[in-house]
Amino acid sequence: MERCDIVSYQLGQKIRELKPYDPISGQFEVRLDANESFFPVDGKLLEEMKAALARVDFHRYPDPYAVRLIEGFAAFYGVSPDHVTAGNGSDELIGVITSSFLEKGDVIVTLSPDFSMYRFYASIYEVKNIDVSKEGSLKIDVDEAIARIREAGARMVIFSNPCNPTSLGLSKEDVHKLVTSVDALVVVDEAYMDFWDQSILSQAHTYENVIVLRTCSKALGMAALRLGFAVACDAITTALRAVKSPYNVNSISQEMGTVLFSHPDLIEKRRDAIIASRVSLEAGLRALSDRVDGIECIYPSCTNFVFVRMKDAKAVFERLLSMSVAVRLMGNHLRISAGSEQENEKVLRCLEAILQ
Amino acid sequence: MERCDIVSYQLGQKIRELKPYDPISGQFEVRLDANESFFPVDGKLLEEMKAALARVDFHRYPDPYAVRLIEGFAAFYGVSPDHVTAGNGSDELIGVITSSFLEKGDVIVTLSPDFSMYRFYASIYEVKNIDVSKEGSLKIDVDEAIARIREAGARMVIFSNPCNPTSLGLSKEDVHKLVTSVDALVVVDEAYMDFWDQSILSQAHTYENVIVLRTCSKALGMAALRLGFAVACDAITTALRAVKSPYNVNSISQEMGTVLFSHPDLIEKRRDAIIASRVSLEAGLRALSDRVDGIECIYPSCTNFVFVRMKDAKAVFERLLSMSVAVRLMGNHLRISAGSEQENEKVLRCLEAILQ
Repeated sequence: MERCDIVSYQLGQKIRELKPYDPISGQFEVRLDANESFFPVDGKLLEEMKAALARVDFHRYPDPYAVRLIEGFAAFYGVSPDHVTAGNGSDELIGVITSSFLEKGDVIVTLSPDFSMYRFYASIYEVKNIDVSKEGSLKIDVDEAIARIREAGARMVIFSNPCNPTSLGLSKEDVHKLVTSVDALVVVDEAYMDFWDQSILSQAHTYENVIVLRTCSKALGMAALRLGFAVACDAITTALRAVKSPYNVNSISQEMGTVLFSHPDLIEKRRDAIIASRVSLEAGLRALSDRVDGIECIYPSCTNFVFVRMKDAKAVFERLLSMSVAVRLMGNHLRISAGSEQENEKVLRCLEAILQ
Repeated sequence: MERCDIVSYQLGQKIRELKPYDPISGQFEVRLDANESFFPVDGKLLEEMKAALARVDFHRYPDPYAVRLIEGFAAFYGVSPDHVTAGNGSDELIGVITSSFLEKGDVIVTLSPDFSMYRFYASIYEVKNIDVSKEGSLKIDVDEAIARIREAGARMVIFSNPCNPTSLGLSKEDVHKLVTSVDALVVVDEAYMDFWDQSILSQAHTYENVIVLRTCSKALGMAALRLGFAVACDAITTALRAVKSPYNVNSISQEMGTVLFSHPDLIEKRRDAIIASRVSLEAGLRALSDRVDGIECIYPSCTNFVFVRMKDAKAVFERLLSMSVAVRLMGNHLRISAGSEQENEKVLRCLEAILQ
């Protein structure tokens, strides 16, 4: 046992009981648990990234404003670089926004089920979290949400659109209605919007109370790099750039992201292939549910994954793991990422074997 | 001008007036303003790093626990990997610690002058900052610090050792005395300890109220990668790993850091050369101060930079910039990083020209 000097330091209440994040570990033949792209970086793109490495000044601090990276992002999405802030993944941006745009005791509204990190950060930063349940359909009821946000006197609301994990989307008209009906800051996490067509990205800077988040981790296939972006009006962008850690995005991710955005055709081609894969996975699951028992509901997806309510999700999840297929278990649902043709076939084949 | 919908969202008080971090920008022949290593990554090391790039699964999320990187760090410094948490630079770790180990209104003690980010995070996270001035000598008075920490009922104290910007160090006996005399969490930022021999790193895990921070940005010459480490006892390490963002360290920095730590001889050789450069720069400055007016005090450095009190620091700083030499201006002091032989010669030559 370790020697400990006699002092009376105790961990604070809010972190004493926390358990480290525990993603699925181990080796699995098929990984469809994290909504990653199934396209590796190879060929010409990998060669260009290797070449970019030689341009990195390893011993120098990164560009604090990630100017070239942001120019690449802005050109690809058709927004102005002046409204873009880069982060160490959108995770970091969510943390920075929650901690600095809110004061302790302020109210943040979340809509559940949704990405779990929103509520995690709320608890760490001691803001008051009012969670509005999406109820049975799992769809966001915009009028209900507006009423609850107003009633709560919320300073901020955050939700993913399309939603992780439900895979459902909110139309841009509904988002506009929500944004213009509350005086809270509205953070719209569009991590999966590359797979759908209801983005408010190009209008983000016209609202004084909106931040749109995007990521390179999903459609763009660069989860390893940790690149996230916040798009907002001048005043919010100025504040975000001031509160973020100065050197938050490392130089190599900046270089690699810049290379990536210089290939818009490749990004679009791969994104389309991922959408086609999800369409095929969803169709396969629907066909399967006609033949077997155990699948209760397949939600119509706007993302690169399919959300499925199961009669016995946990048992199926564990059987899949034993067959070397990892998906995500969420209560009585499975969240299955769209994979390559072979991966989709494998998960469907295994599910059929389990459910028959 | 931009269209703004009629909502009444206003930025919160604590961020309304913040100005983005504004490092020296522009091209300068000699950069001695950020205490970076003067060794680039080249030759065999660069080749290995390029090879490591091919091992990165760009489309997959990073290892949340950076296992191989932490093993490399732990082996190099002779600590157990079980006590190490990796961060996106120590900046991120300072932010995570300040936000999660403290609750609103808790007292954090800082000792000034010191690294400015400590007080920045305190203000963002709404903790109460009591700042103890080091007074004339700029040395830490341990007994005074202990008294002030106790009197304030502080939950946390954070300081750099050796200190940035003063370049002065606190002996490990004094650090031990401080740590065992208070019931606050003591965060010892040893960013510059590779250049001195008074580290408490190997004992960090034996205290129940200590976190030691280290970085790859200084002696190890990898500021571009953003790699920082926290070393602490089991309970603190468990909490730190639980509160950090799951994928905080990108895969490429993990790979490159692992390559770096597989070259302990190179790290040590370069560190020694940087120390030799600082000794030479300090000697050069002392010789210069005998010949010219304007240098009031040269502090005896334990780091890779020299801290100098000047009669007119601002004027000298601006003249240096005009001669394409960037150093750091801090009130009536200049902080000059040790550079290559040519860089040190140039800054000394320019200073002589300015002060004559």
